[in-house]
Amino acid sequence: MNGAETLVTTALAAGIEICFSNPGTTEIPLVTALDSVPGIRAVLCLFEGVCTGAADGYGRMLNKPAMTLLHLGPGLSNGLANLHNAKRAHTPVFNVIGEHASWHRSADAPLTMDIEALAGTVSKWHRTCESPATLSRDTASAIAAAMQGQVSTLIVPQDYQWTECGDHRISLPQFSFDAVDQDSIDRAAALLRTHEKALLFLGGKALRKRGLEAAARIMAATGCDVLSETLFAHMERGAGIPPIERLPYFPEHAVAVLSKYRLVVLAGVEEPVAFFGYMDMPSRLLTADQQAVRIDGENQDLPEVLESLADALGAPRKLALETNSRAASSKPDLPSGPLTRENVCMVLAALQPEGAIIVEEAVTTGGSYYPLSATAPPHSLLTLTGGSIGQGMPCAAGAAMACPDRPVINFQADGSAAYTVQALWTQARESLNVTTMICSNRSYDILRVELARSGQVSPGKYTISLTDLADPAIDWVQISQGMGVPAVSVNTAERLAKELSVALAEPGPHLIEMVL
Amino acid sequence: MNGAETLVTTALAAGIEICFSNPGTTEIPLVTALDSVPGIRAVLCLFEGVCTGAADGYGRMLNKPAMTLLHLGPGLSNGLANLHNAKRAHTPVFNVIGEHASWHRSADAPLTMDIEALAGTVSKWHRTCESPATLSRDTASAIAAAMQGQVSTLIVPQDYQWTECGDHRISLPQFSFDAVDQDSIDRAAALLRTHEKALLFLGGKALRKRGLEAAARIMAATGCDVLSETLFAHMERGAGIPPIERLPYFPEHAVAVLSKYRLVVLAGVEEPVAFFGYMDMPSRLLTADQQAVRIDGENQDLPEVLESLADALGAPRKLALETNSRAASSKPDLPSGPLTRENVCMVLAALQPEGAIIVEEAVTTGGSYYPLSATAPPHSLLTLTGGSIGQGMPCAAGAAMACPDRPVINFQADGSAAYTVQALWTQARESLNVTTMICSNRSYDILRVELARSGQVSPGKYTISLTDLADPAIDWVQISQGMGVPAVSVNTAERLAKELSVALAEPGPHLIEMVL
Repeated sequence: MNGAETLVTTALAAGIEICFSNPGTTEIPLVTALDSVPGIRAVLCLFEGVCTGAADGYGRMLNKPAMTLLHLGPGLSNGLANLHNAKRAHTPVFNVIGEHASWHRSADAPLTMDIEALAGTVSKWHRTCESPATLSRDTASAIAAAMQGQVSTLIVPQDYQWTECGDHRISLPQFSFDAVDQDSIDRAAALLRTHEKALLFLGGKALRKRGLEAAARIMAATGCDVLSETLFAHMERGAGIPPIERLPYFPEHAVAVLSKYRLVVLAGVEEPVAFFGYMDMPSRLLTADQQAVRIDGENQDLPEVLESLADALGAPRKLALETNSRAASSKPDLPSGPLTRENVCMVLAALQPEGAIIVEEAVTTGGSYYPLSATAPPHSLLTLTGGSIGQGMPCAAGAAMACPDRPVINFQADGSAAYTVQALWTQARESLNVTTMICSNRSYDILRVELARSGQVSPGKYTISLTDLADPAIDWVQISQGMGVPAVSVNTAERLAKELSVALAEPGPHLIEMVL
Repeated sequence: MNGAETLVTTALAAGIEICFSNPGTTEIPLVTALDSVPGIRAVLCLFEGVCTGAADGYGRMLNKPAMTLLHLGPGLSNGLANLHNAKRAHTPVFNVIGEHASWHRSADAPLTMDIEALAGTVSKWHRTCESPATLSRDTASAIAAAMQGQVSTLIVPQDYQWTECGDHRISLPQFSFDAVDQDSIDRAAALLRTHEKALLFLGGKALRKRGLEAAARIMAATGCDVLSETLFAHMERGAGIPPIERLPYFPEHAVAVLSKYRLVVLAGVEEPVAFFGYMDMPSRLLTADQQAVRIDGENQDLPEVLESLADALGAPRKLALETNSRAASSKPDLPSGPLTRENVCMVLAALQPEGAIIVEEAVTTGGSYYPLSATAPPHSLLTLTGGSIGQGMPCAAGAAMACPDRPVINFQADGSAAYTVQALWTQARESLNVTTMICSNRSYDILRVELARSGQVSPGKYTISLTDLADPAIDWVQISQGMGVPAVSVNTAERLAKELSVALAEPGPHLIEMVL
């Protein structure tokens, strides 16, 4: 068994089931090991940003890491932006990078880069393997680190991949959650009992059904409000799940919401901050006279933490199916007429089927989708956690591979889609049940919003040009078909409803260009 | 004048003429400054890898930096792979990154990354601006550093962009070449006089016409051989320019060529090394008993260095137009029949017009192009210096903007093209005279070559799958048209010749899918 086979055997034993890859020469022994040690599904992506975005989507759905296999520093560079989104989503990712043979690195061959420096920007855990003898242990350590909800990066020199390992013992990752800190829980319970204006601010895995049900118990016991972080990795929501509002995006709106509270209890999330720094606006959205307490540690099971707090407050274990603790089931009526930001959201909310996974990178077009879909059938909503655009299409591909029995709908801005359009090819190749709804407004509309906010009322030639995607208009139908995904273009709500229904009824990927 | 206007004013004064950008909120003051301080042409690219690849192509043609404007750490991440190629090409690039407002960085907002760490992997010079008062000086320093043939990265917090600068003095970049080191030249001349088996190994700007003419004088005076590095930034070649062979790509072939020489004189290039480390093959391609001497310093004018060496050797100043010192003019006959690797190269070599800029990222298909085109009309040849694929299309766009009167032909592998396909949109938007010839062999063929080299005679399922681009076949005509570039597909040499002639005769971009 060579080093590459040792790595794959260890990954298999740790439960790794899929590898998103765009390999090169320095990964060839690992590529062939995926055949000689069968069990991990290898998926080719045409660009590394698709590999890493898919690994993010997969990990968000299954709470376990996918493996990536990327080529040297340039391959990792191309994957960094979506690894950044994965880092901000606390997604487990087992990121594997081939490196030049150990004796070749000092030659400074053309592809040589400082891979450790690159890895350090997105990975809490990263290591360059120093011997084939430690490859199994290194692999197990990397996967254990990933399971804590982070990107871990293992860099493997090519000669260690092809060298026979003397030691055939296979290590297993050691992972378990830390115990809930009962003192923190008791302190938070005491504070919640005494504060009338309290907020429970939730992020990360607190936004799954079990966490939201615990939060509903806390709300029922204390009368506090509950709010979600603005951009979250994976929220379970819809009919039958306790509903939750999200913190507004712009700081002036967020501050207006938050200023009501004297106490903010944080679970799965840091203190809220502004997405950008704006002139004369705060960076941190809480003021010094607002008390913030965090109840979870870095490696605790968040639903368990919230259940402990609910128990400490003496909240009943089961909440009755009251309208104030579980979302009702209702859908917007199907709209008609030319497409608008609003009616696009209405069509989606009206037609999304039970169990749908909505990957939302719709930016300005998606504004009204969140409230409209609150009472849709139960579904998962995945958003752009790290702000690094080009996440939606790859994330949708990864989510579809994680959950082949659930329909995936990628509600996608056009400017962002252009970043990682190659993901469509993998959706076609793997026959994934992804329906992409492209919001073709032919501009970087969010920048126009920001320009208006910064007081630019009559933008100049280049300011207009640098936010414009209309010249030439991107023909998403041709691009999609060119990548192997059937596509149609629509410009009315009626046509959108019809084509979305068709796409959802047929297996395999589809793309709908929505001309706004 | 605010900080952003100070930066743009300084860049203009330093001779910067173009800015390739995909900006975000943290670059808005710089975007508006491109209007309020007119003079720099702003070009939008749909992905940052296109911005940086275009800056590389521009710099290779004009020997002066283009400016980029990229959004925070994720924008820089997306641009890194082509900045790596630029670094390896010693291309001047003035790389500008917006950063969160200085007081907002500690908030660790979602888009926050370690931009300095990212910049350090590709930039010899990089700095985060620490005050609006130093912005002009920082800009001038960055541009001066870039002019030495490197990527320099200036990171500018957003608040320094919008803040009024008290100091309106504009700095100018201080740049001049270092003097030639006459001692090195004299030592090399003495060695060349006494060694019968000597090689002059050239890279970088030694491969422009003036450098090659000086090298021909040295060859005539000493009887040494002359050889080019394998992957070069910009070679001027063709009829009337001294011809030069290039070092073979695979180490066994390179060693066979190099082993003839006892002395290797290096100009514009390091000692040759293998592209990858292969089992039982050397990393460094020269042995201990081969003497290597470098004659140029880091910041010297390379043609001047070579002319000094020719003078020291007493070589005549002007070489007669002999067949052995200047390439003759001849073209291959136009071939016929189904497309093959060979006849594709023949068609290109036969039809490329005088003054053409050939951006070659054809990988396995391009093997016979270099010798076939040696006697074509004078042209420029740009190759993949850093090995980071996805360089060809953006580089072609940048070269076309640098030299609007010269036809650009991008001879392009399909797998590599898929990395930065968004470059076609910028080619369409700016009506660039770029003809893209896609080698559609529907595989990562170089990896199949490497698999065969490593002894894999019967690859398994995933090994085949991870090197295969045929399922589904990428339809380059649809993708190109979707990006706004007219396109045709051909599968015979006759059709290729016809369509290439049409494309070259018409202004604006074209794409030809060559189904191999």
